[in-house]
Amino acid sequence: MSSPAYSDSGLFVCFEGGEGGGKSTQAELLAQWLEGDGREVVLTHEPGATEVGQKVRQIVLSPETGHLDDRTEALLYAADKAEHLDKVVVPALQRDAVVITDRYVDSSLAYQGAGRALEVAELEDMLRWATSNLRPHLTILLDLEPSAGLTRVDELVAGRDRIEGEPLEFHHRVRQGFLDLAAADPEHYFVLDARGSVEEIAAAIRERVGALL
Amino acid sequence: MSSPAYSDSGLFVCFEGGEGGGKSTQAELLAQWLEGDGREVVLTHEPGATEVGQKVRQIVLSPETGHLDDRTEALLYAADKAEHLDKVVVPALQRDAVVITDRYVDSSLAYQGAGRALEVAELEDMLRWATSNLRPHLTILLDLEPSAGLTRVDELVAGRDRIEGEPLEFHHRVRQGFLDLAAADPEHYFVLDARGSVEEIAAAIRERVGALL
Repeated sequence: MSSPAYSDSGLFVCFEGGEGGGKSTQAELLAQWLEGDGREVVLTHEPGATEVGQKVRQIVLSPETGHLDDRTEALLYAADKAEHLDKVVVPALQRDAVVITDRYVDSSLAYQGAGRALEVAELEDMLRWATSNLRPHLTILLDLEPSAGLTRVDELVAGRDRIEGEPLEFHHRVRQGFLDLAAADPEHYFVLDARGSVEEIAAAIRERVGALL
Repeated sequence: MSSPAYSDSGLFVCFEGGEGGGKSTQAELLAQWLEGDGREVVLTHEPGATEVGQKVRQIVLSPETGHLDDRTEALLYAADKAEHLDKVVVPALQRDAVVITDRYVDSSLAYQGAGRALEVAELEDMLRWATSNLRPHLTILLDLEPSAGLTRVDELVAGRDRIEGEPLEFHHRVRQGFLDLAAADPEHYFVLDARGSVEEIAAAIRERVGALL
């Protein structure tokens, strides 16, 4: 397996965490702050930020898809990642932009590894290959007790998608998966309690990201 | 990486080779012969033998897709394989059927490895993971000079798909990729010159497969 790669140009920031933790809100606020500072920011997400990714997203998230083999699901998410890097993330980093993505490799490790029954080390090899082992300079993990997060999702949107609709026990394994990843590499993770106010959390993120600029 | 796995029940036969080599014709003839012998035969193909596989097939083969990152393409084909095994191949082998598939892992190794710029050993690790390293008892390689094969395709169908439309040099690398795989594991391969008559080739295949029953 190749060693971890960090882009020499640009800044690659990733938001991770379970459902309803406020990732997209915080990603948006961080992007606004950086843009106000005159920086080029590419705010993006997985799955579905490319044309092919949209088709993959439709397969993996639509409840109509029904049962997918665990490996099929992981490979589809990985295909979305490879295309996302090739078409969006890497070109933006190469022109020195800040890339902020809502979900990346850790989501697959947590959902398809810890959540499903796949062996995490093997899954990680596959995902590292799919992404040429390109890693974010910083991953911001918005940690939240799953039942609280899913309640937020239910308040915001009508009907859960195929992944949100998994049983609570699945979401507990996912949460622990994220926490384990963060604990293993504290230098590249910033873990926040997602129960804080939007503004408190945003301020903490600005301080942490500001230190990297 | 896990060691090669061969099903204890059923018989798993794979047809491989470039475009226009007569794989589907020969697969059909072999299936008819085995069914005439009273056996359950599942005649299948990649990509696209499952509902999800159909959607993946649409992405990878439609000329409208345009450029796909090499890894994206390989991962989409691998997702099709994982789903194909889970929903079609493994259940059929478990009930002791003969499974005949038109394309499998070797096609990805030849097209996305030898054909594209991906490192074959790494690609193979990914594909072996996607398929739990389940291998055919026999792979029948219908070998043909690419320009002859593509001429056949052009005579049969209007318009080449996204892969058929690659330059001739790509198809030469693919052909060599298949021949290298066969040379490395002669016990599990049967290589035939696809220029023979349909009946000559079918007879040779019946003899070789008959010896496995």
